[in-house]
Amino acid sequence: MYVLLNNSIIAEEEATLKISDLAIQRGYGIFDFLKTVGGKPIFLEDHLDRFYSSAEQMRLPVKLSRTELTELLYMLIEKNQLAESGVRITLTGGYSPDGFNIAAASNIIVTQQDFVINRDFEKSIGLMTYDYQRQFASAKTLDYLKAIWLQPVLKEKGEDDILYHDNGVLRECPRANFFLINEKDEILTSKSNILKGVTRKHILKFSNQNFKIDERELTMDDLRHAKEAFISSTTKNILPVTRVDGRVLGDGTPGPVTRALMKQFDKYVYG
Amino acid sequence: MYVLLNNSIIAEEEATLKISDLAIQRGYGIFDFLKTVGGKPIFLEDHLDRFYSSAEQMRLPVKLSRTELTELLYMLIEKNQLAESGVRITLTGGYSPDGFNIAAASNIIVTQQDFVINRDFEKSIGLMTYDYQRQFASAKTLDYLKAIWLQPVLKEKGEDDILYHDNGVLRECPRANFFLINEKDEILTSKSNILKGVTRKHILKFSNQNFKIDERELTMDDLRHAKEAFISSTTKNILPVTRVDGRVLGDGTPGPVTRALMKQFDKYVYG
Repeated sequence: MYVLLNNSIIAEEEATLKISDLAIQRGYGIFDFLKTVGGKPIFLEDHLDRFYSSAEQMRLPVKLSRTELTELLYMLIEKNQLAESGVRITLTGGYSPDGFNIAAASNIIVTQQDFVINRDFEKSIGLMTYDYQRQFASAKTLDYLKAIWLQPVLKEKGEDDILYHDNGVLRECPRANFFLINEKDEILTSKSNILKGVTRKHILKFSNQNFKIDERELTMDDLRHAKEAFISSTTKNILPVTRVDGRVLGDGTPGPVTRALMKQFDKYVYG
Repeated sequence: MYVLLNNSIIAEEEATLKISDLAIQRGYGIFDFLKTVGGKPIFLEDHLDRFYSSAEQMRLPVKLSRTELTELLYMLIEKNQLAESGVRITLTGGYSPDGFNIAAASNIIVTQQDFVINRDFEKSIGLMTYDYQRQFASAKTLDYLKAIWLQPVLKEKGEDDILYHDNGVLRECPRANFFLINEKDEILTSKSNILKGVTRKHILKFSNQNFKIDERELTMDDLRHAKEAFISSTTKNILPVTRVDGRVLGDGTPGPVTRALMKQFDKYVYG
């Protein structure tokens, strides 16, 4: 596989960073992640919007202009020849002379991996709730300390993913947004202090043709009364949630609203 | 300069990590930092205690036993031949196959740099308070997002360092512990949800011969009534604080209790 390191496309095995990079020294950096389908990037402009926004929020300079980055992304995709894949664009604090302040030049790394999304409509997952608010919620930073640290706890509880809440106000999963369907068949999703996903944005856009959909603060009480729930992300599309903290939602299978949305979204992305 | 990368001592220019390392992918890792004086490591056992404790708290395996690491540290110090220096031991999540879960083998990096501590007893600094609670407070993780992000704000305010408080309860500086001296000439330092510094530990130990010293929760009110204040760290020893949020403490110069402690600590470390 080839990767992009700053403005060179090189073999992945050769792609390294010197240990003075601020990601290695202080965990400082941001990234974005998009997919390709049929060799074409999906929602590229949304991902680039968010990438440059995360960089700006975290005060990281980007050496490549949007046009240059786009061109290099297409060159990389062309070179790697993967039909379905995940593309990750990482931006670090660069080689910091004092190991603390952001370097004048950040490092940009683009990797691509073979990645076929599970489009099995019967699959569903269980969530474990956890009281935690992500730092710099609206930027996609490298900070996944809590999520990685919680993996053994998650396995022990027998759940598949984590649902963060801030003192009872529902937020998001570490790598996905959260939606629920209430007793009136309205689709609701958390409004603030979250990373607004690209998949989430498109669900909000297309689903309001057939459903009442709203962004607002969601509470544990909303969760208790939910008929259905799902999470959304670039790597998961729409994935039904049928269990939270061991409690079964509805009849324990993906509900009708979720199924309808999944079909719509599948068509929207895969045609 | 030479560095240690896992179990090899190599030239610093050659020390790199592959981009799949979990520090680069997810900011996941821990470190510790100690100093050498006259070519000898200071408080080495305390730093190794904390290094292995941080690793355990963050579920990171360490390939090197304490004996092996100690031996390699001495070899590195011998090879670099620096009289006064800073030694940083970093442990990352390793080359993670899925870019998310901790690898079976972590990466360990030890770097050394020329570093002479300012022992000018007249120097003092100003602090800016900021509402923030470090994640995983008792582990020295790589997470310095907030501190790095705040550097331009600090410059704008004309202060030198940040004092974190959690909703009014004083905690610590990003890289130092905080102490104040109250109206009864008692030395007080924050007790919980902080990284307990090695310098802090030794100040607590030696200063109770001459002063009443106590760890407890400190509030903004304690700060308002403080006669003196200082911060402590491996790179700063004891550094007087004479200004907080623009307000001058005492007469704006290092106070008598702080001066007495500085002299005692200097003797304690440098003989």
